[in-house]
Amino acid sequence: MDLQIGDLLYKGKAKDVYQTNDPELVIIKFRDDITAGDGKKKDKLTKKGYYNSIISSKFFELLETSRVKTQYIKLLEPGLMLSHRLDMLPLEIIIRNIAAGSLVRKFPFKSRQEFEPPIIQIDYKSDEYHDPMLNDDIILALNLSTQEELKRIRAITLRINEVLKGFLKDKDIILTDFKIEYGKNYRGEIVLGDEISPDTCRLWDAQTFDVLDKDLFRKGESNVMEAYQQVASRILNSEDKNKWNLNF
Amino acid sequence: MDLQIGDLLYKGKAKDVYQTNDPELVIIKFRDDITAGDGKKKDKLTKKGYYNSIISSKFFELLETSRVKTQYIKLLEPGLMLSHRLDMLPLEIIIRNIAAGSLVRKFPFKSRQEFEPPIIQIDYKSDEYHDPMLNDDIILALNLSTQEELKRIRAITLRINEVLKGFLKDKDIILTDFKIEYGKNYRGEIVLGDEISPDTCRLWDAQTFDVLDKDLFRKGESNVMEAYQQVASRILNSEDKNKWNLNF
Repeated sequence: MDLQIGDLLYKGKAKDVYQTNDPELVIIKFRDDITAGDGKKKDKLTKKGYYNSIISSKFFELLETSRVKTQYIKLLEPGLMLSHRLDMLPLEIIIRNIAAGSLVRKFPFKSRQEFEPPIIQIDYKSDEYHDPMLNDDIILALNLSTQEELKRIRAITLRINEVLKGFLKDKDIILTDFKIEYGKNYRGEIVLGDEISPDTCRLWDAQTFDVLDKDLFRKGESNVMEAYQQVASRILNSEDKNKWNLNF
Repeated sequence: MDLQIGDLLYKGKAKDVYQTNDPELVIIKFRDDITAGDGKKKDKLTKKGYYNSIISSKFFELLETSRVKTQYIKLLEPGLMLSHRLDMLPLEIIIRNIAAGSLVRKFPFKSRQEFEPPIIQIDYKSDEYHDPMLNDDIILALNLSTQEELKRIRAITLRINEVLKGFLKDKDIILTDFKIEYGKNYRGEIVLGDEISPDTCRLWDAQTFDVLDKDLFRKGESNVMEAYQQVASRILNSEDKNKWNLNF
């Protein structure tokens, strides 16, 4: 059966999810839209979807080989990711190795303070409610997840952090923090979904502490795509680069 | 040794804590100041300190007989509470039986939705940071408390809720939610401190759902002290009333 793209299932701030003729498969389109500040700051950056899809694909492949179950199947072409269909949980799971961003604004942490163990924070993914931070009691009372699922989500998140942190360290990149989302597959299992890219991670150069992620856009810098390309260049091997005809 | 009041140790928004000539004892003075909205709304209400100290005293005595360890020793006179000295934790422990207030504004709960089990929320007590909600990982990373202490705090809080909810139900009052604070005594034990009063609880008439707490002040109503007096009148027995020459 030839795979055919179908109706739009979900339109996010930076990605679209399309049905296919196989009910278990979706195609995720990475758009060039970029937003920040609860959607108030918006722009389009040429090739952002292209780079983010390639970077996410690399991270998902790495995680799959590390026995983390993901939504990812393969990149059909840069920007178009074939994925398992998931029923996404409306939760943003944030894991922090180093204090940065809203954590430093909201709580008395020192900027660049290191966390061992890392801090896990769970926000309610809702434009209407502006993504408020949750606690376990509130998650359970809102029926957003069960105690069992939360335990599983925390364990997988710590595992993902270990895998990505180690991989990025070898590429001279510090994984400061990142946000991931989970969904349930047709068997009800918790599976990593969405994307892992410079849109959803804080990535710092390990030598210079230069920012290589969406914080550049938040701060109004002009070199956002150079940073994303830099991340792609460092994490991809020559085989990956040949595959997508990348010359950097 | 005669007890003598000493220097001011701590000035809160509605109470002062004084040293005494006994290093293990403090005197808590309940003031008439009332504040709301992160301190933006302020007033003085005659006899508020008087009623709150008597109401808190009643609740603390009830909790002590229910084997909950509290800071309370006795009311020296209305407004002045002799208490054990505690090293207070900068945490506001909020327990909710029914959805109301900020919970309904911040999350998609229905107003008056009941929680079984109740929701416990822990905020960081800090004027500078505007009392943000915490989660366990953040509490541990900020060294505000240990995992053991959090477990203990949750267990005691549920116990306090059960005792007060049952007691108030008999007085035709619904305990919607309340905020408590804990400290550590000289042996390092977690002990209930601060106050439990219409300043720190949501109390609704069980028949009419009339508000009998500080929400009246938040909403700018004029009958705040009538409500506080109503609470005192319902929860005090004739012996208590005789003791303080209360005629209602």
